Amino acid sequence: MSAPTAPDSALVDLLGLVAYGELLAFDRLAADARLAPDLRRRAALSEMAAAEIGNYRRIADRISVLGVLPDDAMAPYVEALQAYHDSTEPKDWLEAVTKAYVGDGITDDFLRAIAGALDEPDRQLVLDVLHESRYAEFAAAEIRAAIEADRRVANRLSMWARRLVGEALSQAGRVAAADRGALTALIARREGVEVPALFRRLTAAHTERMAAVGLNN
Amino acid sequence: MSAPTAPDSALVDLLGLVAYGELLAFDRLAADARLAPDLRRRAALSEMAAAEIGNYRRIADRISVLGVLPDDAMAPYVEALQAYHDSTEPKDWLEAVTKAYVGDGITDDFLRAIAGALDEPDRQLVLDVLHESRYAEFAAAEIRAAIEADRRVANRLSMWARRLVGEALSQAGRVAAADRGALTALIARREGVEVPALFRRLTAAHTERMAAVGLNN
Repeated sequence: MSAPTAPDSALVDLLGLVAYGELLAFDRLAADARLAPDLRRRAALSEMAAAEIGNYRRIADRISVLGVLPDDAMAPYVEALQAYHDSTEPKDWLEAVTKAYVGDGITDDFLRAIAGALDEPDRQLVLDVLHESRYAEFAAAEIRAAIEADRRVANRLSMWARRLVGEALSQAGRVAAADRGALTALIARREGVEVPALFRRLTAAHTERMAAVGLNN
Repeated sequence: MSAPTAPDSALVDLLGLVAYGELLAFDRLAADARLAPDLRRRAALSEMAAAEIGNYRRIADRISVLGVLPDDAMAPYVEALQAYHDSTEPKDWLEAVTKAYVGDGITDDFLRAIAGALDEPDRQLVLDVLHESRYAEFAAAEIRAAIEADRRVANRLSMWARRLVGEALSQAGRVAAADRGALTALIARREGVEVPALFRRLTAAHTERMAAVGLNN
């Protein structure tokens, strides 16, 4: 065992956030899978959940190597992430897949932006835990098919997606307020990327994803 | 794509049973993970859940290759397996890890016995989806530590384990009764293994596993 290096607190903060995000996404996707109309779809959402745990393990192992207990690194984010999920519990299958589609998309954009501010091996690690595109494709296909079968679904899911983003932004604000400044400094470290600019970029990409499945932002 | 071969109904029955067992085990372990006293343990049970889904995918793919929809192959087992889990919902963390320990152990013994009755590639497939021993070791360590901290835990968990086995046997009886005889014939095909003998062997191995963690059968 090599001796742990002195932990970079911004890095540990970021990895803690990502790790707890994965752990909770697993938990919620696994529960949401019960909303599936058949076993095939249930298995598909369950597989999306399982992928989160594989990624959790990689991040948690890296946190340990940095000399920090994963539980300690995740602790600052428990409340905000839990609050996000508690306030956005899907009522049916389409809400569940829309939540996965919206949440994974924004998370991946955020991680891609952050990765640029990291040194190796963390840059590659964060890029490695991006969601596989086949999961987004599965969710997108479910949403498109539902809208095709009933146009009114588009309105309902558009409203749902706006609520998801609203809740996510509200909890992100809490995370930023609770943060000791290290995480936002890490984001700003990336040349030209200030937090407001990052938010604008994430929002624009989200709008495009909505349009791609027939939803309005 | 190669044309599907004529499905062997006993084989499809068996794979359907295993596949649905994995899918449901995922679902329940993921839910049970919430009972964990800390995030580290919660992640450990979540990883056990996630492993089930990887195995589910392999079995479901094989069922598809045999020309049967996985949903159709799983359908005969939905009710009995659901009933087992509904009647054995853990109330706390120790009940959850004991359920995983007991259930995985019996399942693996059953699969090992069945595998011998199968031709390749199914024999190897079934052996491949056995649970990784590190999961049983994790659960065993949790049980042993809890008993060491409080001897009364041994009595409570011994009773819980007996209930788990009782419910499992009762639902196994339902499966066998609903079965069109193909599955029991498949088991019997294995030289010298009749169903009652298999049950006795599974019970004996279970008793040994109980003793190994300080529980009584």
